[in-house]
Amino acid sequence: MEFKLNIGAPDTEDRVLRMDAGVLYDVIIVGGGPAALTAAVYCMRKGVSTGLITMDFGGQLSDTSTVENYMGYSYITGVDLANKFKEQVRQFEIAIADGKKAVAIEDGTEKVVRLDDGSAFRARSLIITTGKSSRKLGVPGEIELTGRGVAYCAICDAPLFAGKRVVVVGGGNSGIESAIDLAKIAEHVTVVQFLPELTADRVLVDAFEAFTNTTTLYEHEVMEIVGTQTVESVKIRNRVTGDVSTHEVQGIFIEIGLDPNTVSVKGLLKLNEFGEIEVDCACRTNRPGIFAAGDVTSVPFKQIIIAAGEGAKAALSACEYILRES
Amino acid sequence: MEFKLNIGAPDTEDRVLRMDAGVLYDVIIVGGGPAALTAAVYCMRKGVSTGLITMDFGGQLSDTSTVENYMGYSYITGVDLANKFKEQVRQFEIAIADGKKAVAIEDGTEKVVRLDDGSAFRARSLIITTGKSSRKLGVPGEIELTGRGVAYCAICDAPLFAGKRVVVVGGGNSGIESAIDLAKIAEHVTVVQFLPELTADRVLVDAFEAFTNTTTLYEHEVMEIVGTQTVESVKIRNRVTGDVSTHEVQGIFIEIGLDPNTVSVKGLLKLNEFGEIEVDCACRTNRPGIFAAGDVTSVPFKQIIIAAGEGAKAALSACEYILRES
Repeated sequence: MEFKLNIGAPDTEDRVLRMDAGVLYDVIIVGGGPAALTAAVYCMRKGVSTGLITMDFGGQLSDTSTVENYMGYSYITGVDLANKFKEQVRQFEIAIADGKKAVAIEDGTEKVVRLDDGSAFRARSLIITTGKSSRKLGVPGEIELTGRGVAYCAICDAPLFAGKRVVVVGGGNSGIESAIDLAKIAEHVTVVQFLPELTADRVLVDAFEAFTNTTTLYEHEVMEIVGTQTVESVKIRNRVTGDVSTHEVQGIFIEIGLDPNTVSVKGLLKLNEFGEIEVDCACRTNRPGIFAAGDVTSVPFKQIIIAAGEGAKAALSACEYILRES
Repeated sequence: MEFKLNIGAPDTEDRVLRMDAGVLYDVIIVGGGPAALTAAVYCMRKGVSTGLITMDFGGQLSDTSTVENYMGYSYITGVDLANKFKEQVRQFEIAIADGKKAVAIEDGTEKVVRLDDGSAFRARSLIITTGKSSRKLGVPGEIELTGRGVAYCAICDAPLFAGKRVVVVGGGNSGIESAIDLAKIAEHVTVVQFLPELTADRVLVDAFEAFTNTTTLYEHEVMEIVGTQTVESVKIRNRVTGDVSTHEVQGIFIEIGLDPNTVSVKGLLKLNEFGEIEVDCACRTNRPGIFAAGDVTSVPFKQIIIAAGEGAKAALSACEYILRES
């Protein structure tokens, strides 16, 4: 899921409290996505003192992909949904440290979050919602056309490409799952795979190969994404011959993996084989008082509605923890 | 959480497909609340054939509570949010069996859902989202006078008792919340609490105790609800002295908890100590291909946003299961 919520524009910044290094917060939330903002609303409604440390607060605009699978809105842009979430957080006097990156987290009778600017904040409990980052191709046009034909989530965006021609980059499970979802509705799907074979599970490959409107290019790689307003074509290189061909498509789904953002908790929290923070069904990590929610966790499926639900759970678990420990 | 989504009004029923006993569905969803409708949207977007069996579809109006903690809406009535969810389901040609109760579920190479009218539907996977129901007192007059003075939802029915005398049974959070709502408009509110103290959160108890038109009877219990056409009085027993007194009231609100609706899956699915269906973080039950989501499950905290997130997870888990089993 490529969905970033960036709360706080300059005109509203004065309405939020700055975090105070002298305060022992009941809860500090690290992150600024749907899980973080839902956790913030639930914590504030519970009346516990809450701090929010986010890289994105007041930062770049939200990604503008449209959202059609967030319940409550049949159709909404990412920006608009982000604004709705932001409004809900701004109802409360929440303390925020924005534009700052948590670089280290320490556990003890107090939990400490150390930021990249050398500051540190203290809390009785923490909620880690640092999300995942999509691996980027790193080719020309990718950044410029993101949300305008360049997509990182077929579950979210496939319906926008009904009847259109698309490229899927990646032959692993997420690539082939995306290709299947797209093949059902798109005019044509071209899978671009770096390796000489697909690495997705056999059942997925079988399901994919049953479609007749697909092409798979093995040992190929995307060199450039071309378009003025939206994606118009993709330049793809044959890694064996070196030939570069241009494919006219309206969309390109980049499915080459996601990396959990866990730098600050490495060595502290138990991670699973995918580097995700292991949580139970109440969002508890292996450390009492440290909770985690959203895409950074071992909970499967990266969706806004799921992250929001997990954020609510993490907040209610943290509030229960505080109540019991006090 | 007392929040029912009742999808489908007579004027729109012709737009949905009826379920067909001759079809083997990819997924059948049992239930009609936030988890069910989210699961329905996710299944339909995945392109799998989906059936929805719900007691409530086309049934009574949604409960009219206001919702202030569903992300995306700072404030919305339950009815309006239900309508939003319904709109999203109605975008798709989903097959629905409405007004029918699932009485038995059978597992095998095909899963079978048997309904109270003798019909049965088949699916490759199931999602159980049957929610919870209000616990009954089990005293004479309760069933006979339900809807005629006996109520289970103050949010829905409190306005009917403006200027009247009412009893609220239960001193937990839902009981005291109801008592507060009623004390604002009723002539007098008597809270009947089984225990020697109120168990609601302190903030609620404080708010309740600020009213002057209330009485709290500790260690008391309701023995009988009396009335011909409507409630006329309630017989209440002092559990310490054994004395029974008659209280002339026009209404009685029963707020003594919720029971998971698991009749159809008893003996088939593993339940926890609270009678909830045990699920893992991907909404899997102990039976492969049978998933569960929402208030009926062991997932803690009964919230709309949590149920919706779990519904999405259950749907995506079911879709993965179908892909792998075929």
